[in-house]
Amino acid sequence: MRIEAHGRMPAISAILRDMAQNLEYVRHTLSHLMAAAVLKHRPDAKRTLGPAIENGFYYDFEFPSPLSDEDLPAIEQTMRDILSSWKKFDHKEVDPEEAREFFADNPYKLEMIDEIVGKGEKLTLYTSGDFTDLCRGGHVKHPAKDIPADSFKLDKIAGAYWRGDEKNAQLTRIYGLAFGSKKELDAYVTMREEAKKRDHKVLGPALDLFVFSDLVGSGLPLWTPRGTLMRNLLDDFVWSLRSRYGYQKVEIPHITKKELYETSGHWAKYKDDLFRITTREGHEFAMKPMNCPHHTQIYARHQNSYRDLPVRYANTTMVYRDEQTGELSGLSRARSFTQDDAHVFCRLSQVKEEALKIWDIVHEFYPAFGFQLKVRLSRHDPAHPEKYLGNPESWKTTEALLETIVRDKNVEYVDAVGEAAFYGPKIDFIANDSLGREWQVATIQLDMNMPERFDLTCINEKGEKERIVMIHAAIMGSIERFLSVLIEHTAGSFPLWLSPVQVAVHPISEKHADAAVVCATQLGAAGMRVEVSPGSETIGKRIRESEKQKIPYSVVLGDKDIAAGVVSVRARGGEDLGQVALDDFIKRLTEEVNNKA
Amino acid sequence: MRIEAHGRMPAISAILRDMAQNLEYVRHTLSHLMAAAVLKHRPDAKRTLGPAIENGFYYDFEFPSPLSDEDLPAIEQTMRDILSSWKKFDHKEVDPEEAREFFADNPYKLEMIDEIVGKGEKLTLYTSGDFTDLCRGGHVKHPAKDIPADSFKLDKIAGAYWRGDEKNAQLTRIYGLAFGSKKELDAYVTMREEAKKRDHKVLGPALDLFVFSDLVGSGLPLWTPRGTLMRNLLDDFVWSLRSRYGYQKVEIPHITKKELYETSGHWAKYKDDLFRITTREGHEFAMKPMNCPHHTQIYARHQNSYRDLPVRYANTTMVYRDEQTGELSGLSRARSFTQDDAHVFCRLSQVKEEALKIWDIVHEFYPAFGFQLKVRLSRHDPAHPEKYLGNPESWKTTEALLETIVRDKNVEYVDAVGEAAFYGPKIDFIANDSLGREWQVATIQLDMNMPERFDLTCINEKGEKERIVMIHAAIMGSIERFLSVLIEHTAGSFPLWLSPVQVAVHPISEKHADAAVVCATQLGAAGMRVEVSPGSETIGKRIRESEKQKIPYSVVLGDKDIAAGVVSVRARGGEDLGQVALDDFIKRLTEEVNNKA
Repeated sequence: MRIEAHGRMPAISAILRDMAQNLEYVRHTLSHLMAAAVLKHRPDAKRTLGPAIENGFYYDFEFPSPLSDEDLPAIEQTMRDILSSWKKFDHKEVDPEEAREFFADNPYKLEMIDEIVGKGEKLTLYTSGDFTDLCRGGHVKHPAKDIPADSFKLDKIAGAYWRGDEKNAQLTRIYGLAFGSKKELDAYVTMREEAKKRDHKVLGPALDLFVFSDLVGSGLPLWTPRGTLMRNLLDDFVWSLRSRYGYQKVEIPHITKKELYETSGHWAKYKDDLFRITTREGHEFAMKPMNCPHHTQIYARHQNSYRDLPVRYANTTMVYRDEQTGELSGLSRARSFTQDDAHVFCRLSQVKEEALKIWDIVHEFYPAFGFQLKVRLSRHDPAHPEKYLGNPESWKTTEALLETIVRDKNVEYVDAVGEAAFYGPKIDFIANDSLGREWQVATIQLDMNMPERFDLTCINEKGEKERIVMIHAAIMGSIERFLSVLIEHTAGSFPLWLSPVQVAVHPISEKHADAAVVCATQLGAAGMRVEVSPGSETIGKRIRESEKQKIPYSVVLGDKDIAAGVVSVRARGGEDLGQVALDDFIKRLTEEVNNKA
Repeated sequence: MRIEAHGRMPAISAILRDMAQNLEYVRHTLSHLMAAAVLKHRPDAKRTLGPAIENGFYYDFEFPSPLSDEDLPAIEQTMRDILSSWKKFDHKEVDPEEAREFFADNPYKLEMIDEIVGKGEKLTLYTSGDFTDLCRGGHVKHPAKDIPADSFKLDKIAGAYWRGDEKNAQLTRIYGLAFGSKKELDAYVTMREEAKKRDHKVLGPALDLFVFSDLVGSGLPLWTPRGTLMRNLLDDFVWSLRSRYGYQKVEIPHITKKELYETSGHWAKYKDDLFRITTREGHEFAMKPMNCPHHTQIYARHQNSYRDLPVRYANTTMVYRDEQTGELSGLSRARSFTQDDAHVFCRLSQVKEEALKIWDIVHEFYPAFGFQLKVRLSRHDPAHPEKYLGNPESWKTTEALLETIVRDKNVEYVDAVGEAAFYGPKIDFIANDSLGREWQVATIQLDMNMPERFDLTCINEKGEKERIVMIHAAIMGSIERFLSVLIEHTAGSFPLWLSPVQVAVHPISEKHADAAVVCATQLGAAGMRVEVSPGSETIGKRIRESEKQKIPYSVVLGDKDIAAGVVSVRARGGEDLGQVALDDFIKRLTEEVNNKA
């Protein structure tokens, strides 16, 4: 595995890029428009800077008297009022004196003017309507026509420091949202509200899946029984798919001498990202940030013959990265996370078949959770050879091979230069979640460099040593990250087979407690994970709690059920399944689990 | 888990101690006798020092001309010849002048005399027969009667430095073995030869279970597919026993802020044994040497009620200790090893029941491998309170409670003062292997200190916070150490259920290869782990290889077998099971696996 950012990956293609460019102009224009509107309401405000950002724009001001969220609707209305009068953007180059005179009462603009002059760059003023700003350009041509008046809204205000430095003056930042249309804006706002409700950092602990401890430290999740159960079920699912294709499990220590990473090339490239250790004897060790170098040492324990290949190692194991505290984010970006890693050691001629097997595993795994997959062919960037190991020929070979695979599969794919791992190109899979967000998940990485650096060979048909290649292939990528995506994708309503508690049994009152235990025992004997609620609480409260815990089924047991020898079943979300014979219910559950429905 | 040595534990009791004391006198006497014999053969040798050691004795000499192993039988014969004349030991105190005169030509003895005089201690000479040595005593009274002439033998010679310092003169060390009788001597020699053949450091890699890599570093085993399979089968076995008793799996990161160990008390006590990390932001972290502090943080994630207790966490996970290179030994003492750890959080009133459950698990697990168990009650040492956490009352409570459990079980046990963990007393289980050696394996540790330090409570029946207690309970202790013991105990002939390859299928020649694949497929479908050998090698060679790999069953397939629709089966060790219908063979295998026979 390559060390790489865990962040969201925007979908990219030529058309998308043009659309994105236009949207950036819209957002930049809106930051001007907002500044114009703010100055109508607060003529004493000192404006500073206002760029386009993801999803919208902002502008920072110094206000003599404070601004609050309540002021935003009026400013937003003024923006719309002004917008119709903004029919074009004029710009002119000015000399420093003219610029300084124009912004004579604004120390921030004066500082910027000095800076631009100091760099020997040109000063330009952009004007639309009666608003003029110091700017480099990048606006829409005809704001009144090009920007639908309902495609933006002001979002929130926040504190900010001039130049982002806390030693400088504190400013007020006003954020706005802007999209191509009202529909897109509304969709984003709805998605954001929904995402907030689904935030795995909130929902995970609420469902009692994981927890952070101040004593253990941030970025280091501790897994509760429920969370551990889910981790293991997911890992078993991946293993059930891999074991069909001849993978074998291996196990490795989580540290190594630095010599391993000097040989692999990771030390030179990622030294600062590693947790490094100096032993009592003065040796330098590191905690592993990936597993491939360790796995090469298992492959290399004896001389393999071509008859032994492909050799396929699978290993679900934690890796560690010395992330900065400010960069940490729940399970999405952690200091320790668990890769469901695998490495295939094979001949170049075997790569295609092996990659197709991994392709199949990926396409059995993700659809089981309702994810749709996109494909990206991630190539190296020939303009930056210093970022990569190996020579141009091996990159040509490996990229051509992966391209054949993707083309033969006859799927749409994004061709992405500069997205390769430092040792080889990749096929990346990008999952679309239920909110339409995209996440990079599984990868197939082809690597001629590690085998070279570790001198990995097989004895071929002629009795000669032959260099082999490696395929790196994680299915979930990391269990932590996959779970963060899955929690938000499902809002915690996991499929039955994956739910930590599958059935809650609720005796209506304490006198039904024995019957509840008998029922739970039968469900348990059928392999179900069951909880019995205490009859002392009200039945309404207990059912609400089951619903909050997203338990797939609730069974209610009262006098009538016991008399009729049935159970009353309620599905998650409230659907009443009525009275059912326990055997029939168990049959339904078993089918649902087996189908991973 | 406590950090403790992984070494072998000698059985101890009052009687054994007396026997050991006498044997030490015998061995010390024999070092005098050997020196006397050496001087008969080599009057020009300069003797230095000769103590009793485990299993025998040695004496270091400076020889003007080299001695070799071929010289030992003659010296040994001379020892026996002299022995009959050694009817007593005389000793006398001498003044420094007399001593110096006696050893005038021996610079080593002169140095020792100066040293003794310098310390103000007495100089004594001990004489038996015509041999006199500078000595502090500790011999048998009547060597000729007290030492059977066939209870000792000379073992080997080795190089040694005077005072163990390589800057000093190089000496020749002669080792002898000595026991209470010829029978014991022979048994030891046989055991040692057998143990050498079974050495897990040799046999483990020969059976392709694990490997060490120079690049990863010593003390850090890498687990091959076969070894990983065994690790997982063993861990699954422990889990199958634990899951009956309400244990739940949890998972934790392998690092933590040092604050966790400052709170637990491990930092103060074991700081130097930890792999310590300083992060890029300057924080101090450590790799975990045990799991209990992490597990307390999972317990403490919410306020537990007495109704929730006992809470039982199981976690098979690696731990790390910064061992010195010279102390490392295969899987017995490694820098990373895997604990099958568990912690029970409960009230004091629940300890007995929980401890008995663990007792049962231990007694289901070990006998499955033919190990016999002894019990040790490991108490703290009241003479050294500085070695332990907590107050005398809590030690009294916890030790009394464990004693009740051991007494109620009505088993023999060793009462061992000073063997407790630093946080609480333990019940230790000691396994006897097939060579009669003893190994400390499972433990049940009772701990009132961690719950105090981490403020772990439950809400009791009165609605008040009540301090809880913890039980630490590993079954294998560490998978690595258990496997090292198991490999040597079985000499690699693992029970069928645990064998990485269970059946080798050998087609007599290449024309039987297809039938072999069909047979292997049927065995595989029945859940067996099968390998097919290539028909191109001779059948004899392939059967010998299966035997060397300790594969439980070999199936031979030739014309007659195929014609008769049967398989010819050979069990490990050579027993011929004759021709069997494949279905019957599968039935036999399945039963053997299910019975863990």
